[in-house]
Amino acid sequence: MSVADLTTSPVTSTYTKTSSRLHSPQLSLSSTRLSVHFSRSPRPNPRAQNFKITCSVNSQVPAPVAVQTEEAKSKSECFGVFCQTYDLKAEEETKSWKKLINVAVSGAAGMISNHLLFKLASGEVFGPDQPIALKLLGSERSFQALEGVAMELEDSLYPLLREVSIGINPYEVFEDVEWALLIGAKPRGPGMERAGLLDINGQIFAEQGKALNAVASRNVKVIVVGNPCNTNALICLKNAPNIPAKNFHALTRLDENRAKCQLALKAGVFYDKVSNMTIWGNHSTTQVPDFLNARINGIPVKEVIKDHKWLEEEFTEKVQKRGGVLIQKWGRSSAASTAVSIADAMKSLVTPTPEGDWFSSGVYTSGNPYGIAQDIVFSMPCRSKGDGDYELVKDVTFDEYLLKRIAKSEAELLAEKRCVAHLTGEGVAFCDLPEDTMLPGEM
Amino acid sequence: MSVADLTTSPVTSTYTKTSSRLHSPQLSLSSTRLSVHFSRSPRPNPRAQNFKITCSVNSQVPAPVAVQTEEAKSKSECFGVFCQTYDLKAEEETKSWKKLINVAVSGAAGMISNHLLFKLASGEVFGPDQPIALKLLGSERSFQALEGVAMELEDSLYPLLREVSIGINPYEVFEDVEWALLIGAKPRGPGMERAGLLDINGQIFAEQGKALNAVASRNVKVIVVGNPCNTNALICLKNAPNIPAKNFHALTRLDENRAKCQLALKAGVFYDKVSNMTIWGNHSTTQVPDFLNARINGIPVKEVIKDHKWLEEEFTEKVQKRGGVLIQKWGRSSAASTAVSIADAMKSLVTPTPEGDWFSSGVYTSGNPYGIAQDIVFSMPCRSKGDGDYELVKDVTFDEYLLKRIAKSEAELLAEKRCVAHLTGEGVAFCDLPEDTMLPGEM
Repeated sequence: MSVADLTTSPVTSTYTKTSSRLHSPQLSLSSTRLSVHFSRSPRPNPRAQNFKITCSVNSQVPAPVAVQTEEAKSKSECFGVFCQTYDLKAEEETKSWKKLINVAVSGAAGMISNHLLFKLASGEVFGPDQPIALKLLGSERSFQALEGVAMELEDSLYPLLREVSIGINPYEVFEDVEWALLIGAKPRGPGMERAGLLDINGQIFAEQGKALNAVASRNVKVIVVGNPCNTNALICLKNAPNIPAKNFHALTRLDENRAKCQLALKAGVFYDKVSNMTIWGNHSTTQVPDFLNARINGIPVKEVIKDHKWLEEEFTEKVQKRGGVLIQKWGRSSAASTAVSIADAMKSLVTPTPEGDWFSSGVYTSGNPYGIAQDIVFSMPCRSKGDGDYELVKDVTFDEYLLKRIAKSEAELLAEKRCVAHLTGEGVAFCDLPEDTMLPGEM
Repeated sequence: MSVADLTTSPVTSTYTKTSSRLHSPQLSLSSTRLSVHFSRSPRPNPRAQNFKITCSVNSQVPAPVAVQTEEAKSKSECFGVFCQTYDLKAEEETKSWKKLINVAVSGAAGMISNHLLFKLASGEVFGPDQPIALKLLGSERSFQALEGVAMELEDSLYPLLREVSIGINPYEVFEDVEWALLIGAKPRGPGMERAGLLDINGQIFAEQGKALNAVASRNVKVIVVGNPCNTNALICLKNAPNIPAKNFHALTRLDENRAKCQLALKAGVFYDKVSNMTIWGNHSTTQVPDFLNARINGIPVKEVIKDHKWLEEEFTEKVQKRGGVLIQKWGRSSAASTAVSIADAMKSLVTPTPEGDWFSSGVYTSGNPYGIAQDIVFSMPCRSKGDGDYELVKDVTFDEYLLKRIAKSEAELLAEKRCVAHLTGEGVAFCDLPEDTMLPGEM
């Protein structure tokens, strides 16, 4: 069944798809750090399988696209100068370095990664005593670009960057990784809505979840950036039952940063005065930047910004339209500030949260103290001891306005979840998303 | 006289051009940090003047392009949240911060800057106790993109980034700057050679030199990145007689970094083992990556890499072709690693050079101990005490092979200098550059 067949299929369709994207973890090749050259070898596909899905979609949504049946090629190997042998252990000792940390980045040839990888390599996130291995996941199409990225990393001579490997098979690239930054996703095609994107990208994140489950560190921390990121994160964690669900994050940090900036602008203060900013819910237009609990100079925002009409009617829109305005002005999406926010999200997990403050992350809701529906990924306020883990903040307040908006985002995420039931192992997908809630300027 | 007229003019031509790019520093508007909004006002041009140049160019070189006569517009003002008032002095004291440093970046809407600005804002270059003001210089055409960049800087919430202003008039943007990173330059048009580029970009750097001379800090450090960067730096310093010529640098750090990486690859060591790497001469294909003085693990390279044929015949080409290979693979020029190398060049001036090592920078030759021609900008080995200044390294050795190649780059820079005599105030330009020596992959 070809892509062309599917795009002209009826709006309510029953179809069978053959997946060739699933690779056996047993076949995962160990990478060698000794060879300078590398190759991509075609691999057998022992787990190709048929499964049947019934999917009911509304009239705006194109039918899901079949997974391509081309032979998957793969090989994750060290790149160039990073293949040199050296006694890192001795260096760790003489330099008082920590043990090497393995970080995988998907969509590694894209613009967000092009900013993020250099931040990671520079020590900005993990500090000046943390050597790092970067494992770059790309696609067959982007393989040459991946090599280009690796070359630029070589030429940057970052002392902490000890290994770079590139590959297109998540079962190889994710091996032993302690962090997985899942940035790569298919962009929305013309006319495609959230539901269509959910299915296409959901399949990618289901596969990557399986790969993480098979080969990553048992305590890997996963940050999902590719949209729709909350539900992608849910799909990913459902496909990785051996990794704690708590370890999966959907990035809402850029929204948080933008919200802080807009409050600062309105209040006439510098942005470092704004704290306790929560983004509740989905990374979509139903998201709720929380001005009830946020503070400016330690004082509740509503006491500082007296223009409550602005808070209720304009603030959220200002935050959400930021990406769209940026594309208009700059002609590109906000790759640099997105990369900054990913680095922020990571730093928030590896450094203790300042006393009394918190940060937002889209995390698994089961056991949450707010009464939000279980078993979805929802942005909520978190605090960390800096050990990579976090706890949900208890001392937040709600009013009717806030609860009503949180409920709307919750309902949306429950609907998205029904849309991807075929990808979470929960039966038959049923998609009834009422409206397009993609944030302006996002793919 | 229009651009079209000039491009079809005879190969040896006498022409008169009217410059409207020269602005009076006296008219420079002081920026206000109080207003959130800003505007661009057309400005009078009190110093418009005619001057006559005779230029003899070889048959490959298009005639110089006239400066556009459109009314220059300008206004450099604070952007968005960076217009907030706050008592930075109090913060400097409570946080033990240093005094705010003013850094101007030209070509601020371009890709190299898009990496560099975030590095500067993060504290990667000047350290965690150095608040910074970024002054972004763009063009009328790129003004909206400049706003986009400033928006992304806002959304990044960097605590050290205290001011961002944007503008298109160097007489305003350069006011009181302690660093000027001159990245912006016109790219090479189809069929244009180095001589054509020299004239077009030389005019930009002459203007920026005048502006720096008029309004920048008296000890401003200037790093020229826009190509042809050595001669652009010479033009710039000649137009800024009140700023020490020693303060002007042409960026050859990316070449140095690439050379280190290639030596590491050949020797089978990690790149942090390579030291004492000099790039001599011009940032062009006549540049000389010096394997005679470079060391690997403290041992002269020629004792470690026994394949001297490779060193003499392949090494330089490997370094120089890097940019071209990268464009092939990645489809873009090396913005990220160029930004890294600019940050490296700055760090090398503000942190003490490690004992026994050095770094390369294109600097003014007058008084150099190597016998290189006076009064050009030539990449040479430097050491710094970390005070922003540097001294040339004396303990380097030369052999016939090295001297011969240095002489070739020197001859080229002297020829480039003759080409831009009309821009350095040294009379009549005469352009006889024998070949196209642009580095592959560079604009």
